[in-house]
Amino acid sequence: MALPTLRIIGFIIGIFLITLAVSMAIPVLTLFIFERTQDIHSFVWSSLITFLAGLALVIPGRPEHVHLRPRDMYLLTVSSWVVVAVFAALPFLFTQHISYTDAFFESMSGVTATGATVLSGLDSMSPGILIWRSLLHWLGGIGFIGMAVAILPLLRIGGMRLFQTESSDRSDKVMPRSHMVAKYIVLVYVSFTLLGTLGFWVAGMSPFDAVNHAMSAISTGGFSTSDQSLAKWPQPAVHWVAVVVMILGSLPFALYVSTLRGHRKALIKDHQVRGFLGLLLVIWLVLGTWYWATTKLHWLDALRHVAVNTTSILTTTGFALGDYSLWGNFSLMLFFYLGFIGGCSGSTAGGIKIFRFQVAYILLKANLYQLIHPRAVIKQKYNGHRLDEEIVRSILTFSFFFTITICVMALGLSLMGVDWITALTGAASTVSGVGPGLGEVIGPAGNFSSLPDGAKWLLSLGMLLGRLEIITVLVICTPYFWRH
Amino acid sequence: MALPTLRIIGFIIGIFLITLAVSMAIPVLTLFIFERTQDIHSFVWSSLITFLAGLALVIPGRPEHVHLRPRDMYLLTVSSWVVVAVFAALPFLFTQHISYTDAFFESMSGVTATGATVLSGLDSMSPGILIWRSLLHWLGGIGFIGMAVAILPLLRIGGMRLFQTESSDRSDKVMPRSHMVAKYIVLVYVSFTLLGTLGFWVAGMSPFDAVNHAMSAISTGGFSTSDQSLAKWPQPAVHWVAVVVMILGSLPFALYVSTLRGHRKALIKDHQVRGFLGLLLVIWLVLGTWYWATTKLHWLDALRHVAVNTTSILTTTGFALGDYSLWGNFSLMLFFYLGFIGGCSGSTAGGIKIFRFQVAYILLKANLYQLIHPRAVIKQKYNGHRLDEEIVRSILTFSFFFTITICVMALGLSLMGVDWITALTGAASTVSGVGPGLGEVIGPAGNFSSLPDGAKWLLSLGMLLGRLEIITVLVICTPYFWRH
Repeated sequence: MALPTLRIIGFIIGIFLITLAVSMAIPVLTLFIFERTQDIHSFVWSSLITFLAGLALVIPGRPEHVHLRPRDMYLLTVSSWVVVAVFAALPFLFTQHISYTDAFFESMSGVTATGATVLSGLDSMSPGILIWRSLLHWLGGIGFIGMAVAILPLLRIGGMRLFQTESSDRSDKVMPRSHMVAKYIVLVYVSFTLLGTLGFWVAGMSPFDAVNHAMSAISTGGFSTSDQSLAKWPQPAVHWVAVVVMILGSLPFALYVSTLRGHRKALIKDHQVRGFLGLLLVIWLVLGTWYWATTKLHWLDALRHVAVNTTSILTTTGFALGDYSLWGNFSLMLFFYLGFIGGCSGSTAGGIKIFRFQVAYILLKANLYQLIHPRAVIKQKYNGHRLDEEIVRSILTFSFFFTITICVMALGLSLMGVDWITALTGAASTVSGVGPGLGEVIGPAGNFSSLPDGAKWLLSLGMLLGRLEIITVLVICTPYFWRH
Repeated sequence: MALPTLRIIGFIIGIFLITLAVSMAIPVLTLFIFERTQDIHSFVWSSLITFLAGLALVIPGRPEHVHLRPRDMYLLTVSSWVVVAVFAALPFLFTQHISYTDAFFESMSGVTATGATVLSGLDSMSPGILIWRSLLHWLGGIGFIGMAVAILPLLRIGGMRLFQTESSDRSDKVMPRSHMVAKYIVLVYVSFTLLGTLGFWVAGMSPFDAVNHAMSAISTGGFSTSDQSLAKWPQPAVHWVAVVVMILGSLPFALYVSTLRGHRKALIKDHQVRGFLGLLLVIWLVLGTWYWATTKLHWLDALRHVAVNTTSILTTTGFALGDYSLWGNFSLMLFFYLGFIGGCSGSTAGGIKIFRFQVAYILLKANLYQLIHPRAVIKQKYNGHRLDEEIVRSILTFSFFFTITICVMALGLSLMGVDWITALTGAASTVSGVGPGLGEVIGPAGNFSSLPDGAKWLLSLGMLLGRLEIITVLVICTPYFWRH
């Protein structure tokens, strides 16, 4: 890495840190409103440290006439997320009397919109910390969508290669990318958050809880303001609002912009959106019928419980309505799989993403057809785009190594003495960005705090890997990257 | 399907059934030797029924001038394995007073060389049944290797497409295929079995146990003549013989023939063989050191326990030396993964196969390099063969759907009330051809008999899918296949 390159990367990370420092004003403001002033100094100190660190990186200035090559962007992406998580952990460290390991875990879980938590006693926790958690989700969510379409063009980097890796394997280049699109996306994100807040509030939450859950739902993060998660609010309307906002967060944001621009059918015509909503509907019906038949609840109540929990997992949010890990073997297994699938590419959701399964299915069908008709020439298309060799390789390699990553993490966790179910579902849940795992320890009613420190660092790495779609992080770990 | 095609398929299956009926003479002979004549009539009846069924299929004769197209071969392959398993179940049904479900499960487990069992009390069981189980493994093993190289040319079918799907994704076409090769392979298989028998006998087994375990090990099946599996024999030499024979069964048999023909380095130069043996060695060292440190056994004893159990799982045999499921979280997780990997293509072993992981690793490396050097042209080779688009697609699609198959089976099992660990490891173990799963029910000290009937049928399907490398079975389930 040449020095000017490192300086420009430092400059950009500096801007992120200053933004982070400024955003700490929101918890401070919250604490003022709630008259819980005793925690304010912790946030002020966190903000000051973060600001100074950012300033130190910005002051050397941005070198003129230096352009970041695509390969430099990998380092920028990975180090941005890590450095932001390092500083975003400070408020947890200063107010919660926990180790830095725990603080970093919570912070990384926040910015990657994972939603795994080491904190308990949320119901009586400082509102400053609660809003900080939700805010990290919210910032991480828009950062995830926005980075590819807004930050890169801002730096005048032509290569979309990074975005190709990070969020879509280049299968959703449907929109002209520009400042306009980026602004529209932010506008949509903010509007959905406001609508969500209004919805939760009207449905029966306090304004504070409503803001928190709206931010947490639209970013498909999953932090709540209660240890019971959504179960604290008995109003069915609250649960349905959560379902709607989580779904909104899991659809491709570029398509909302297309819709706003007059392509009325942009969403409904998209294969990924159709596949995602179709799958969700099938799961609601199947599991809903089963749950209704076993529990004898009113069918609407059964459907609501199923809808909230399955949507929460499939969108990789991680809200819970009751302990679904007690629903028996079949639902346990289904919940375990749903997180792997995840939402749509170009949204805030994690997982392997629905379009990769759709492409794999198309490939399987073509493969089977070819074996029967060896001389047939098959044109394989997805969403109107030809599936050329590069797309196919990158999609399948990604899916394969997504699974391998989870397997290796689970092996690492088990080496630290973590039991089988916790290791496997914890690894899967963090890499996919769901949050809670299964089993007694880290299940929807549990918490990650009792895990050994090594396990928390490993899971933090898993969250980072999952959020940056693995390959981005792996690239900077190769010797090729550091040669010359 | 045209009638002549069905007639020729029936004719071939008829020959298989007659062979099966004749091979039932071996348990009959065994029962004579052991003077346990009360079971003989069961085998005679089984043999008679099987023979008559075979005769009924053979009598219409083989239509002249009819050639099987590649697509017909899928139906032939799948129906051969199913029909053979249907009739091979008869001796279990007639002698063990078990349901046909159990008998079929045991039979399918035998011919697919899986080694999952519903029978217990093996130590006092009729020697006729014991040798029948081992014989099914042995026939299934040579059937698996031999089918592609011997049966297809016998039928004068040029297309190697089936073999390509069934055992290698066309990456090991190193040998000229002919009757010669097929004969050599059978010769090698028989020699290894005889050597194994001699080895087990010299090491301390009775001649009967030695024959059974040699057949079971070379086919990487895993049925034993004792409920305790290899733990019944305290002699270390017995365990090491088992290790050697299992490894012999997991290397590509075509390479043994190459070696015999004078290519002395054929085995040692092969990437797959190197990868497999290298992986095995690493696992022995790592887990051996760990086991030695935890148990304070003599290092040779620790290594032996580790070597037997890890080799047993990686080669998808399924022998056990003690209950390794009590070795703790880390080894449990490792054992769970090893079965997925499996042995070499062109051997009797199951699993995804080592070469697919090697190819995936090559693809990942190339993918990462390409992201850093976007304009580089990378030639991807494996074992000297170019990895063209078709190979890559079929390998990755296979690996993806191998995993999906296990997931779907596990979901199906959990729907029948089977617990999480049993469902997941049972599905993985049968599809990979290992045999025992993990957990209390189907672990190395357990047994499949307590599972519900539906689960047994599903797992039998899993064994078939795994043995025929999934795609072969899926092909005949597509509408394309049955359209004209």
